[in-house]
Amino acid sequence: MMKGNLKIHNATIVTPLGREAAQGAAMSELSIVKDGLIIITGGIISYAGPASEAPATRPDEHYIEYDAKGCVALPGFVDSHTHLVFGGFRPDEFQWRLKGESYMSIMERGGGIQSTVNATREASEEELYRKAMWFIDRMSEMGVTTVEAKSGYGLDLDTELKMLDVIARLASDQDCKADVVATFLGAHAVPKEFAGRTSEYIDYIITEVLPKIKDKARFCDVFCERNVFEIEDSRRLLQAAEEMGLKLKLHADEIVQLGGGELAAELKAVSADHLLHVSDEGIRKMADNGVVATLLPLTAFALKEPYAPARKFIDGGAAVALATDLNPGSCFSGSIPLTIALACIYMDMTVEEVITALTLNGAAALGMADRIGSLEGGKRGDVAILATDNYNVLPYYVGMNCVKTTVRGGCIVAELK
Amino acid sequence: MMKGNLKIHNATIVTPLGREAAQGAAMSELSIVKDGLIIITGGIISYAGPASEAPATRPDEHYIEYDAKGCVALPGFVDSHTHLVFGGFRPDEFQWRLKGESYMSIMERGGGIQSTVNATREASEEELYRKAMWFIDRMSEMGVTTVEAKSGYGLDLDTELKMLDVIARLASDQDCKADVVATFLGAHAVPKEFAGRTSEYIDYIITEVLPKIKDKARFCDVFCERNVFEIEDSRRLLQAAEEMGLKLKLHADEIVQLGGGELAAELKAVSADHLLHVSDEGIRKMADNGVVATLLPLTAFALKEPYAPARKFIDGGAAVALATDLNPGSCFSGSIPLTIALACIYMDMTVEEVITALTLNGAAALGMADRIGSLEGGKRGDVAILATDNYNVLPYYVGMNCVKTTVRGGCIVAELK
Repeated sequence: MMKGNLKIHNATIVTPLGREAAQGAAMSELSIVKDGLIIITGGIISYAGPASEAPATRPDEHYIEYDAKGCVALPGFVDSHTHLVFGGFRPDEFQWRLKGESYMSIMERGGGIQSTVNATREASEEELYRKAMWFIDRMSEMGVTTVEAKSGYGLDLDTELKMLDVIARLASDQDCKADVVATFLGAHAVPKEFAGRTSEYIDYIITEVLPKIKDKARFCDVFCERNVFEIEDSRRLLQAAEEMGLKLKLHADEIVQLGGGELAAELKAVSADHLLHVSDEGIRKMADNGVVATLLPLTAFALKEPYAPARKFIDGGAAVALATDLNPGSCFSGSIPLTIALACIYMDMTVEEVITALTLNGAAALGMADRIGSLEGGKRGDVAILATDNYNVLPYYVGMNCVKTTVRGGCIVAELK
Repeated sequence: MMKGNLKIHNATIVTPLGREAAQGAAMSELSIVKDGLIIITGGIISYAGPASEAPATRPDEHYIEYDAKGCVALPGFVDSHTHLVFGGFRPDEFQWRLKGESYMSIMERGGGIQSTVNATREASEEELYRKAMWFIDRMSEMGVTTVEAKSGYGLDLDTELKMLDVIARLASDQDCKADVVATFLGAHAVPKEFAGRTSEYIDYIITEVLPKIKDKARFCDVFCERNVFEIEDSRRLLQAAEEMGLKLKLHADEIVQLGGGELAAELKAVSADHLLHVSDEGIRKMADNGVVATLLPLTAFALKEPYAPARKFIDGGAAVALATDLNPGSCFSGSIPLTIALACIYMDMTVEEVITALTLNGAAALGMADRIGSLEGGKRGDVAILATDNYNVLPYYVGMNCVKTTVRGGCIVAELK
């Protein structure tokens, strides 16, 4: 990781506080400090608070000085759900879908996830790596300092390993502008080799793949949907993954109400994601069991689907995170500004809730709220500095980026010209 | 204007053709040339077509060479409806509105257009100029090479003149990254000094303001809406403006169906803008009279209003332009990528129609289709070069910028890092 020494002067520091997800009403509770000073020492925040109360730093330690006068400093954004490693692109398929072509017809023309699987199997590790780096550069400009990245376009051992190796290389690259966290999503779809034999594919993952990838990913995820991986197969896979030491995530209740939210609660998954069609019971159980609800409004926007019920989650005491879902099919977008606009305008979230959802709760969705997601002593020095002193500009500047400078581990990694 | 010599090699040239607006089905007709060459000589396109058929250039003329291999070259985008000169910002009001506060309540708290009018009256010319330049830099990064800018936050002679002087300064500034076209919008709202005396305010504009600004603007525009400027006042103002040599635009049928589209047709206005609630009769008359329908989806998105009926306009044979409506109240956004996504996903426009709407038809909405808006000999060397060889990426990369390089008058004015 980056380990810079940096002092950020004169900022209005706006941050949630704490080392675990903020649930329900707590999502609105931001700490706001005017004339703040943030001291980052060796990549870690050693002080964040009023400049007048700051401790002296050691005279032999050199710090870069950054003047954030007139700016808000937020925790760096955490994009906790992306598929940023993939081969090929599918722009033409996007057109076919807009013209009303059916999912099946698109599949028959060679579109759909299988087309990305084919391209990813063919791509070299180097190609996948360079492409992902390009996206991370774009994300970094928008204030993102931590990105989750899923495998799941291989659907065979070799390609899943290749994807996880790319993610590991991104995570360890000193020049990578964001921290990268790996999720194994071998159960993203049933590959053509196992067509009609879903349970056998789950067996294959459990016996052949999981043992070989278990040390390369923090999470195991599954696309839990009707006619893809139903509840029973999803449970079986996730329980096996947990036994091998992986933490759990689910793509849940995106297309129909299947009980994915309930399953996430039963398994005490770290997060369940999408949730457009989650049941009220699923919401209650997720809140009770501390499962983070990761909502992905860009995907709903791109697919013209209804938005996930953010207010029901928050008002029901759950922790909501927001993420981009960057992927080459349903949602080729990593736009943090549009995510913010959709959440505020179309999901009735307040700006304060959105800030928490993109920082502390994004961190919690990665099981990292003890290390990132807020601006307070002991956490990593990841900061998004806005070109405004009023954080209400975030949704107001609709779809436009208002991040001026991104700091990762005390190092300036992106700056608006 | 900028007058560079530039050769753009190896591009896929994608452009509408012609010197007037493309109406109806003609909006889909793009010329596509692979392995194209664009030669810009002294700021003007001297050749755009297959590299194999290109003429030799004079050996004593020096050209910058640009390799656009793997890239699409489009005409620079024309943002034909903005309010980019203004004092202050209104982010808090945006929050109040999201929380359901009424327009009247917001006005009473000091929000609404009057708050921008107050801030604009107080602002120095230098402040307004610098702020507008900042927005133009952002627009330029998204491929915009021509921007319309309206007055209308003065609502008194002195401030309207100040705004038009700022716009003139932008238009003549050698460093300005886009061409700027002035529109007088004195009838943007009834100022507090004339509260309850709308017709007297129109008299004031006609007798006191128009004679002094008529040489500083190309267009006269009016906010033609129920309880603001009704049809009769709008007609009276626009006819007086036309007599003084100004071309006409209208903010029409945005909030209710008032007959603004019909009035635009009657007066043969160059464009009518917004049009969320236009009547079928208005659409037909606009098509018959060659009035460009300038649609502003970002505003509808930000206000959660229905989108204007783009398909009805195009299928009815009208010319549609798209623009951002950048302004500090209803739509603080200049996002060309989001405009494209909304038009394709939510207004059922095809990518080809959207390209025409943002280039040739935007030019036509400014009465400039003879000079800009397409890549062909004799037009200005304004080019948006995409970081992809497939223009379908424009809506697919949802809300994200895929412009790599912006060329204005043969000079490179913006480049993605």
